[in-house]
Amino acid sequence: MSILSEKKVAIVGLGLMGGSLAMALRPHVSELVAIDRDEPTLAAALRRGLVDSVSADPAAGLQQADLVVLATPVRSIRRLVALLPEWCPASCAVIDLGSTKVEICEAMAGLPDGFEAIGGHPMCGKETAGLSAADPDLYLGRTFVLCPNTRTTPGVRRLALELVEVLGGRPLFLSPQTHDELVAVTSHVPYVLAAALMFEAAEEASMNENIWSVSSSGFRDMTRLAGSNPTMMLDILMTNRQAVTAQLGELQEMIGQIGLWLQEGDERALSSWVEAAHRAYLTKKGQEPG
Amino acid sequence: MSILSEKKVAIVGLGLMGGSLAMALRPHVSELVAIDRDEPTLAAALRRGLVDSVSADPAAGLQQADLVVLATPVRSIRRLVALLPEWCPASCAVIDLGSTKVEICEAMAGLPDGFEAIGGHPMCGKETAGLSAADPDLYLGRTFVLCPNTRTTPGVRRLALELVEVLGGRPLFLSPQTHDELVAVTSHVPYVLAAALMFEAAEEASMNENIWSVSSSGFRDMTRLAGSNPTMMLDILMTNRQAVTAQLGELQEMIGQIGLWLQEGDERALSSWVEAAHRAYLTKKGQEPG
Repeated sequence: MSILSEKKVAIVGLGLMGGSLAMALRPHVSELVAIDRDEPTLAAALRRGLVDSVSADPAAGLQQADLVVLATPVRSIRRLVALLPEWCPASCAVIDLGSTKVEICEAMAGLPDGFEAIGGHPMCGKETAGLSAADPDLYLGRTFVLCPNTRTTPGVRRLALELVEVLGGRPLFLSPQTHDELVAVTSHVPYVLAAALMFEAAEEASMNENIWSVSSSGFRDMTRLAGSNPTMMLDILMTNRQAVTAQLGELQEMIGQIGLWLQEGDERALSSWVEAAHRAYLTKKGQEPG
Repeated sequence: MSILSEKKVAIVGLGLMGGSLAMALRPHVSELVAIDRDEPTLAAALRRGLVDSVSADPAAGLQQADLVVLATPVRSIRRLVALLPEWCPASCAVIDLGSTKVEICEAMAGLPDGFEAIGGHPMCGKETAGLSAADPDLYLGRTFVLCPNTRTTPGVRRLALELVEVLGGRPLFLSPQTHDELVAVTSHVPYVLAAALMFEAAEEASMNENIWSVSSSGFRDMTRLAGSNPTMMLDILMTNRQAVTAQLGELQEMIGQIGLWLQEGDERALSSWVEAAHRAYLTKKGQEPG
């Protein structure tokens, strides 16, 4: 028996993530409301029939919502969580789609009795942004991390699982700390490396424009993340400072070691390292879903 | 009037690069010989009609060659250049396809009078290896760097330009030093970063296998180069130590700076950096050929 089908759901933030969620969710809920600061976005959502109603005012839009989905950048989510008791005095269930989870789950833990909340992070590519790029299949087959916290009840856990099922995602329960540590390695540190490499190349290019003629697909792949949305990335870095700093420290050490081996011409050490990296790559590739 | 069409050309090394060269070159030369240590590779080349004759013995295969193309890993090319006077006592023209150029051009400079030589580096993706992946269009539209040195005569320069033209490549003359500095940034340092990131992730995975469930296309792009052929990469790193070490030093410093800003929560500095990386990315993207 579906619980979602009886719920009035409100999505706050109608970008690519919130918009895609609206499209996938609409047939499965009793009523769908969109809240966004941008009036043209709300008008487009209504015109395209993605939701039942829209509002630029959370206090009005969140009235009688059973489930609130927060789909804004991380630090905006943190602020919204703190304002929920004011907007939904009768309490509600809450989930979010933010890219880091420790600070958001801490904010959730501060909600008053009656509120049920769980952190969420669907792992989808986000190269384009905005409602115009929304796609009901965005979450299909993707891992959807769920982070329980002190406000997570069995009820909101069931609701979240049903939501992930409806989206075609694969639920994965992780503690907020573990989530943030893992994505520091797979997502946030890669961004920093891509941006740093982009800087090195741009500096070199200021001296010799031919650099772009000798850059190929490898360089393009390694710098693509430098084009990530700056507001989103700053939010992510500022809310995952500890894990990112720790990983960057380890990388800095490893890069220093490689530099030393190169300076000393230590072929044996370099060879072991190159071989081990190749093995790690093949092991990872072997574990990828076909 | 074509000069290549009168030449007997010998290709040493029938991997992806040499094999693709043979396929593209055959209709344009007087005679084509392949030299490789691997007998099955030679047999396959003959069977597929890629060359006129084959030999596992350079002394025999290089007899009467007018132009020798060295298409093995970098340090093997360096050794082959030193052996050419023994194998081609009547002298010949030489070009290579190696990924670094300073050490190879130094070896070319040591050839006796009569030898004409120029360094070469075609910028093609090399994700697969071996003759079976060879493709006559591998060089089409790609930059083909040519590095003049003290053994570069007007004659070998014309021959090299005609060879690049026949392949459909875009010739770009660079000094060996400039070439090695530029590819350190666009290719060798990206490899080191990809390998280092692969290690960090593998170490994290040994503690929590869920890391692979929260890695997406960004991580895959950022670690793809870690799968590069270890022998080729070791050769590249060992022959471009100075430029790679210098660039790694700068990156290490930048990563340290980001780490400090994160530790101090210096949002203003981080924000400027993230914005500047985004601008550098867009500027680069704007300069890419359509």
